[in-house]
Amino acid sequence: MLKVKESIGLLKIDEGSVTSPAGFTADGVHTGLRYAKKDLGVLISEVPASCAAVYTQSHFQAAPLKITQESIEMDHKLQALIVNSAIANACTGEQGLKDAYEMRALCANSFGLKEEHVAVASTGVIGEYLKMDCIRNGVGDISPSKDGSPSFQEAILTTDTVTKKTCYEMMIDGKKVTIGGCAKGSGMIHPNMATMLAFVTTDAAVESSVLQQALSELTDVSFNQITVDGETSTNDMVLVMANGLANNEPLTSQHDDWDIFKQGLKLVCEDLAKSIARDGEGATKLIEVTVEGAATDEEARITAKKVVGSSLVKTAIYGADANWGRIIGAIGHSSAEVNPDKIGIFLGDQCLYHNGQPQNFSEDKAKEVLEKNTVNIHIDLRIGNGEGKAWGCDLTYDYVKINASYRT
Amino acid sequence: MLKVKESIGLLKIDEGSVTSPAGFTADGVHTGLRYAKKDLGVLISEVPASCAAVYTQSHFQAAPLKITQESIEMDHKLQALIVNSAIANACTGEQGLKDAYEMRALCANSFGLKEEHVAVASTGVIGEYLKMDCIRNGVGDISPSKDGSPSFQEAILTTDTVTKKTCYEMMIDGKKVTIGGCAKGSGMIHPNMATMLAFVTTDAAVESSVLQQALSELTDVSFNQITVDGETSTNDMVLVMANGLANNEPLTSQHDDWDIFKQGLKLVCEDLAKSIARDGEGATKLIEVTVEGAATDEEARITAKKVVGSSLVKTAIYGADANWGRIIGAIGHSSAEVNPDKIGIFLGDQCLYHNGQPQNFSEDKAKEVLEKNTVNIHIDLRIGNGEGKAWGCDLTYDYVKINASYRT
Repeated sequence: MLKVKESIGLLKIDEGSVTSPAGFTADGVHTGLRYAKKDLGVLISEVPASCAAVYTQSHFQAAPLKITQESIEMDHKLQALIVNSAIANACTGEQGLKDAYEMRALCANSFGLKEEHVAVASTGVIGEYLKMDCIRNGVGDISPSKDGSPSFQEAILTTDTVTKKTCYEMMIDGKKVTIGGCAKGSGMIHPNMATMLAFVTTDAAVESSVLQQALSELTDVSFNQITVDGETSTNDMVLVMANGLANNEPLTSQHDDWDIFKQGLKLVCEDLAKSIARDGEGATKLIEVTVEGAATDEEARITAKKVVGSSLVKTAIYGADANWGRIIGAIGHSSAEVNPDKIGIFLGDQCLYHNGQPQNFSEDKAKEVLEKNTVNIHIDLRIGNGEGKAWGCDLTYDYVKINASYRT
Repeated sequence: MLKVKESIGLLKIDEGSVTSPAGFTADGVHTGLRYAKKDLGVLISEVPASCAAVYTQSHFQAAPLKITQESIEMDHKLQALIVNSAIANACTGEQGLKDAYEMRALCANSFGLKEEHVAVASTGVIGEYLKMDCIRNGVGDISPSKDGSPSFQEAILTTDTVTKKTCYEMMIDGKKVTIGGCAKGSGMIHPNMATMLAFVTTDAAVESSVLQQALSELTDVSFNQITVDGETSTNDMVLVMANGLANNEPLTSQHDDWDIFKQGLKLVCEDLAKSIARDGEGATKLIEVTVEGAATDEEARITAKKVVGSSLVKTAIYGADANWGRIIGAIGHSSAEVNPDKIGIFLGDQCLYHNGQPQNFSEDKAKEVLEKNTVNIHIDLRIGNGEGKAWGCDLTYDYVKINASYRT
């Protein structure tokens, strides 16, 4: 597990976004795929950028993901991304592939780019064909700018209630490097990606292969550690573009400032992952589960995700009920090594369970912790040195409401 | 997978229960563990019975399960079961073990039985100590009889809304053999047992080892194929007692009528499993998912359980929405082999998805199917000959309501 260096010189830029790094612009417009909200977005770099991506591990990978992979495999550079919401273009067979290719061509033609430098993403309902007329007409209205990130952020949402973004600055080779990101999430959020799109931009110079390795590793401790409902979507994608306009020496793991960059990228991924978990369908709070003392980091992550994904834990936290028995229930069927007589469970600064025995604790203090916007649960397995975190949200009436009537 | 023989001569006895087989009696009383409802039950056989059991696979096995295993290991016979609801006696350390031993002794003394012929079960809240005064006082009020099964069935419930029982008769060696069963379920119902207790009685003569093998095999296609919320409890137990009073030749897999008996036991397990799924916390309907064409029976069962366990499928069915994209979502992250271009998805007699393409179907007819008490989803993976089923329930506002305030 990558350790956080406190004094590493990373600066969070509250007003920053995907267009903060040098050379990136964006826009989003309403084309009619959604009733009234923006539904088509484009993110562009001034110059072709190094890139890296991770995709859903669903057996049913949507058409746009196939086109994006094809683009990236051509020469491992991207200059633009076109993305729509409302319709996922998943499970749409040959027609779906044709439509995704056309989206890519429309973007390339509109902005004078090579087709193989364009990535495509979609999110929304599975099994419906894209309304290509909307997209054909809409592309002409897109006018990417430095100020366009709010529109872009809105255009990628489905049942999300808020846009999601983050940004960090750091010094590399004495040059200012910026990493920005935005995301959409909401339901179907779980292991190995979910209805989750995350787009990260940076002006750092870094080779695609190095970037890919870092992204894959960091995804395992960020995006793959969130869950809303245990579901995995057909359309998940995390995409990073690094256009090199900061003019630093190209980054590799040998570069003196590699750790700073990687830490910056980690914070961006973690911020976006947490903002997705917090805005899970119907959610009222973010749940953060920290596990230490596991046999391995991986087992710590598995255990943390079991707890944060438990419907019974999630409803108990919605009800602000310190029902640690449900945490035991969730850990009980984790595949990780667990010694029931050693484990400790903590809520805030109170120990609820210790060495096989329930502990006396203040229900009032527990309720205070459970009523916060972010609820922290801490588990010490007391077996080894493995540690890990996972993030999720509470399960509420509104989750049922949203999902009993999402499609129709 | 065991095939159902239609004309095998099994008779369902609607009014039958755990006290229908010869020599079994039961009772249930209110002792004060629950506010007003019955909370302590005893099930007794006239003579020591062969027995078999399966237990939760949680790392945190509750005290009563340890005592029951100890009893069974002594000489593989049981004559009685004592069970309480309200408190699970799980995660209660040394005190919990002491209390479970005392429950066993109280039952043995009260009815003049050997301690090692008594099984103990508990269900309810985790991490609280049993109120032994209630149990000590209550045991004296228990008076098992042939008519006592309704009281016994009630005494084992927690958030269940209905009691659950079934009964079949069959002829073996020309003798009438009866198998009866009852169960409790509700929340925390998932793979490899759950907050699920099921007790099966029969007057058949069958050795414990033979019975154990049959129960383990049948559990995999019944109790292990239901899910309410993906949670596994610390207290799950399925117990079978066979007292031999039907006077048949002891059953083995070589016995001419073995298939009849095993089929009877399977139907009892399946009926109880389905009644648990149908009465899941807050549920309004039973969902039955049938998978065929899988690489193996096991992969069929895995796939069926993924679909029936999906929160998004469960909410869509609550909303009577034929959102097959969510079925795709659930199958997509199954560990089973899936070919996205071959799969077929059916609801009632309509095909929703076929060979990688969405199909036209009547939304009205789909809604009719989805509004029934039992919703049947059929999936053909078109890879091999494996088949399997799983059962669950819809996810509703009431699930959230019940679980946001269960403990307090």
